[in-house]
Amino acid sequence: MKQIDVCLTPDLLHLHTTENTIVVVADVFRATSCMVTAFAHGVASIIPVATIDECRVWQERGYLAAAERNARRVDGFELDNSPFTYMDDRIRGANIAMTTTNGTLAITRSRNAVKVLVGSFLNLDAIARYLKTEPYDVLVLCAGWKGRVNLEDTLFAGALVDRLKDGFAMAEDSAIMANRLYCDGKNNLVSYMANASHIRRLQRLGIQKDITYCLQHDLYDVVPVLRGTALVSMAV
Amino acid sequence: MKQIDVCLTPDLLHLHTTENTIVVVADVFRATSCMVTAFAHGVASIIPVATIDECRVWQERGYLAAAERNARRVDGFELDNSPFTYMDDRIRGANIAMTTTNGTLAITRSRNAVKVLVGSFLNLDAIARYLKTEPYDVLVLCAGWKGRVNLEDTLFAGALVDRLKDGFAMAEDSAIMANRLYCDGKNNLVSYMANASHIRRLQRLGIQKDITYCLQHDLYDVVPVLRGTALVSMAV
Repeated sequence: MKQIDVCLTPDLLHLHTTENTIVVVADVFRATSCMVTAFAHGVASIIPVATIDECRVWQERGYLAAAERNARRVDGFELDNSPFTYMDDRIRGANIAMTTTNGTLAITRSRNAVKVLVGSFLNLDAIARYLKTEPYDVLVLCAGWKGRVNLEDTLFAGALVDRLKDGFAMAEDSAIMANRLYCDGKNNLVSYMANASHIRRLQRLGIQKDITYCLQHDLYDVVPVLRGTALVSMAV
Repeated sequence: MKQIDVCLTPDLLHLHTTENTIVVVADVFRATSCMVTAFAHGVASIIPVATIDECRVWQERGYLAAAERNARRVDGFELDNSPFTYMDDRIRGANIAMTTTNGTLAITRSRNAVKVLVGSFLNLDAIARYLKTEPYDVLVLCAGWKGRVNLEDTLFAGALVDRLKDGFAMAEDSAIMANRLYCDGKNNLVSYMANASHIRRLQRLGIQKDITYCLQHDLYDVVPVLRGTALVSMAV
């Protein structure tokens, strides 16, 4: 039987194997929700980069620059980390260079996997359907917050476990824990998230609208995948 | 307000501060449950050591040797990792050298804290009452399983958060997650644990009796504390 495993933060990635495995990276608030929204609105590719300076280099070559540091926009960049900025006609066909506090790092650290996919609640069903058709094990990599676990990415992991549990065995307790938390909160994720640390940080920035948006399930039928150094939308 | 934080595995300890903090180490199946049981039955001290060989050195000096590796007893040692072996008159007043797969390592890695306490469901109330009287923040350090998170230690952390949440703020999402899992499962922890990975490992060893025992709350009014290199029972 195929296995589904959950890595609660990139700081625990050394304990997990990515061999023969498809990694699904989740940074629900807000990097991977932005990426999924961008592909649903026609972006051609997204290059995840580590630093603001790398982003600027790509910007000079005609890419749109997207960045967030500590949940704030960067001066001179076209895009920030609010998914609503990606619902714009000017991004259709564009290439984006994106750096975020946690999400892009998690993607670049997963390169050895069979495939690296970008997951969020917004494309949960598309991701689940795709994984069912593949012969590989699955590792959900939660981006977390500066190495620490966070509730929102864990809930996404638990939601994906829930969608896949008929065809996959849960490898370790992290998958069980994530799945139980999701089942506990799924009837009202917005209120379930209410006291979480990242929500408190985001609310200080006045972006409750983003939070509510990112917790919606199955809005978009896209599966972003890492090809070389760039994310593209897979035809599914 | 004092803070309570939860470190889900020693592999994440680098993200947490132990400064001005009392660390409560939990290795519910079964090291810290054994330690608490031992002190409740009159043991004088327990030295946590890293290796089987160190245990043997202390054994030659008159200590009782206790060990477990991969949940199995070690040849030639008086005690193993079943709490029932510590309910014996011969251990009254004895000194024990103990090494376990995960628990003793977690204790030795916490030495920089203000105090290091040994927690389990068996002495949950005693630990909670003690922490309320102290001015320090609290970090619950889950011993986990070879670096990975496990359900039983996380549930203990969540139980302690539950007992302390009136007087302590939850520092980060790990405390919220542990607490919600505990609240989800507390009405029947034995069945809540049924599919967890460690339970599956332990059940192969035929020790359901130990599991049921270790999940009982508030049996003993003891607070083991690290003094130098040895654990002793604190007068509370």
